[in-house]
Amino acid sequence: MPQKVGLQLPHGMRDLLPGDTKLIRDLENLFVDRFSRWGYFEVITPVLEYYENLLPAETPEDQFFKLIDREGQILAMRTDMTTPIARMVAAKIGQEQFPLRVFYLANVFRYESPQRGRQREFFQAGVELIGDPAPTADAEVITLAVECLKEAGLEGFQISIGQVNFLKGIIDSMDVDSPVKDGITQAISRKDFVELEMLLDKQRIDPGLKSMILSLPALRGGVQVIDQAITLTENVTAREALENLREVFHLLDVYGVGKEVFVDFGIMRDFDYYSGIVFEGYSPGVGAPICGGGRYDRMLGKYGLDAPATGFAIGMERLMLALETEHQVDRTTVDYLIVGSDPAQAIKKAQELRGQGFSVLVAGLGQSLPVAARKKLEL
Amino acid sequence: MPQKVGLQLPHGMRDLLPGDTKLIRDLENLFVDRFSRWGYFEVITPVLEYYENLLPAETPEDQFFKLIDREGQILAMRTDMTTPIARMVAAKIGQEQFPLRVFYLANVFRYESPQRGRQREFFQAGVELIGDPAPTADAEVITLAVECLKEAGLEGFQISIGQVNFLKGIIDSMDVDSPVKDGITQAISRKDFVELEMLLDKQRIDPGLKSMILSLPALRGGVQVIDQAITLTENVTAREALENLREVFHLLDVYGVGKEVFVDFGIMRDFDYYSGIVFEGYSPGVGAPICGGGRYDRMLGKYGLDAPATGFAIGMERLMLALETEHQVDRTTVDYLIVGSDPAQAIKKAQELRGQGFSVLVAGLGQSLPVAARKKLEL
Repeated sequence: MPQKVGLQLPHGMRDLLPGDTKLIRDLENLFVDRFSRWGYFEVITPVLEYYENLLPAETPEDQFFKLIDREGQILAMRTDMTTPIARMVAAKIGQEQFPLRVFYLANVFRYESPQRGRQREFFQAGVELIGDPAPTADAEVITLAVECLKEAGLEGFQISIGQVNFLKGIIDSMDVDSPVKDGITQAISRKDFVELEMLLDKQRIDPGLKSMILSLPALRGGVQVIDQAITLTENVTAREALENLREVFHLLDVYGVGKEVFVDFGIMRDFDYYSGIVFEGYSPGVGAPICGGGRYDRMLGKYGLDAPATGFAIGMERLMLALETEHQVDRTTVDYLIVGSDPAQAIKKAQELRGQGFSVLVAGLGQSLPVAARKKLEL
Repeated sequence: MPQKVGLQLPHGMRDLLPGDTKLIRDLENLFVDRFSRWGYFEVITPVLEYYENLLPAETPEDQFFKLIDREGQILAMRTDMTTPIARMVAAKIGQEQFPLRVFYLANVFRYESPQRGRQREFFQAGVELIGDPAPTADAEVITLAVECLKEAGLEGFQISIGQVNFLKGIIDSMDVDSPVKDGITQAISRKDFVELEMLLDKQRIDPGLKSMILSLPALRGGVQVIDQAITLTENVTAREALENLREVFHLLDVYGVGKEVFVDFGIMRDFDYYSGIVFEGYSPGVGAPICGGGRYDRMLGKYGLDAPATGFAIGMERLMLALETEHQVDRTTVDYLIVGSDPAQAIKKAQELRGQGFSVLVAGLGQSLPVAARKKLEL
């Protein structure tokens, strides 16, 4: 093959050089340690699955990397880990193991426009707590997310928490068409007041209800926001959602992470996918959420095992982006550089120091090494 | 979506449940530690690349998982890590960083018949030492492979080591057609004496040369095998290969791993890909090599950066298979199980113990947990 082979990567794919990879590795180790302390066990699922078995992910069809195998079946690369894990639990674990706590560190793939901190292949760390319907389960995963971000050294982040049934209860009770309901939901989610007002103006609805809905995107803050919201609606579903949110908030205080968490009814993530508490973590300087999750009680049922579940995922690249804006660390230095003219002597010294746990390089004869060393040892 | 979604995985894909995943994680941590002590730094490359840029891997075309992107380009999932790393080094690192030491822990994909310890997606841990042509570099990566297998707790394994130019020199000097040469090479590699004899019988070659070639597959053992081989041939390439092998052997003794290593001229791996020292690690009870590697001085040149290189990869599933036949360990137990009727009290105790580094689960009210705990704490 005398001809030179190309060096380019497909759009949205990238190499990670030693500095970035070391940061990912260090963060993953912290998360493995943290997840393990909470009694979560790691699982691995394959990158490629039957496309139709991944549909519960509710990823738009055009965001899947798909291929056709030799039997004519459509395979797809996973776009998240919650869906494959739900399938795995339904197929191979079952409810005898409930409540089941699992975690993952994995690469997922979405065929969408690359953005800052999100390529077409990206890395996630996350947990799933399956088979436990209680608010304690939601509080547990949110606390764990907060602990992970703190442990990673992230400062100044905030967790926004909502409950999809609050808004769903209010909007479902409105006497308008389904597409209008979706439009209103999305406008609130995007905090698009102009669009929201325009949509509401087109409908014949009670002015009180209209002004209440217009106030929702701005309803943001501490636990007092829940009290405020309760005065706004008589809808039973919405009120139950608020009581659920209040209980989770109380538990977060018990866990000692109440200060990092804020109510935000604009947080909705995927409306059909999530079924209760939802949350997102934000850091100054990174526009998109660094982590996100919530309760998804309808997912496992699609695989034939009806079970409540809650969990979250941290976007590793977005977290790295947030951390890099805070501090830059040199991650490619060894402990010892050994320089000597007798290879056997240098090798023996190197092996001795490695046996003690140090990282050691031996410089070749007259050859200098392009790596920084904390100590230089001339033999 | 009321209809039940399928639970099957494509052929050759599998889920890894907590026990297996914990073993992979533990092994990976050992290897990261070991690679780091030798001054290697981790890198990550994308799963998907342009198909044509992966051709230097010399993977048969039908073993690639391929797809066509929206620009009509053929993408493929990586079938090894050496090739993408060579591309990455040529594109983004360059020779100023030579000698470059990198390692990886990655999933790779080959569309071939699944076998014991080798699915269509499988995991590799390995290193590449790029820019160093010396025998010290080959001895370094072989020693590192031995240390990794030992560190993993594997006993009774052997490393077979060869030099592709020994056989290449002998066979190239024969006055036979190229396909015959390939057939002879492959017959020696498979230790297929019958086929080998049949191929040689069809050619008009010197009986002395014939009996020498027939003796090659059985040439296996300690350093004395090199002395024996030198008496068999006057071919310059073959003799230089043996001198190179002798030097690497000597260095392996200096490194203290001579006892694990045996000469085997049947080891050839991919003839076109490897250019010097080649080696494979075997363990009783696992038919295929657990690790393999060698020198590949022609690979980087294909990406426009002419540079010598050597390295190896460990097949994680095959290593796990070898370890499982040796000992089975319970890997899904937590340190503490807390049982109490006051959630706030239980949460506080759990957080205190987690802060001390223990893994802790809190049992729900009346709910038992399907996880083993070393200690039970009733509050």
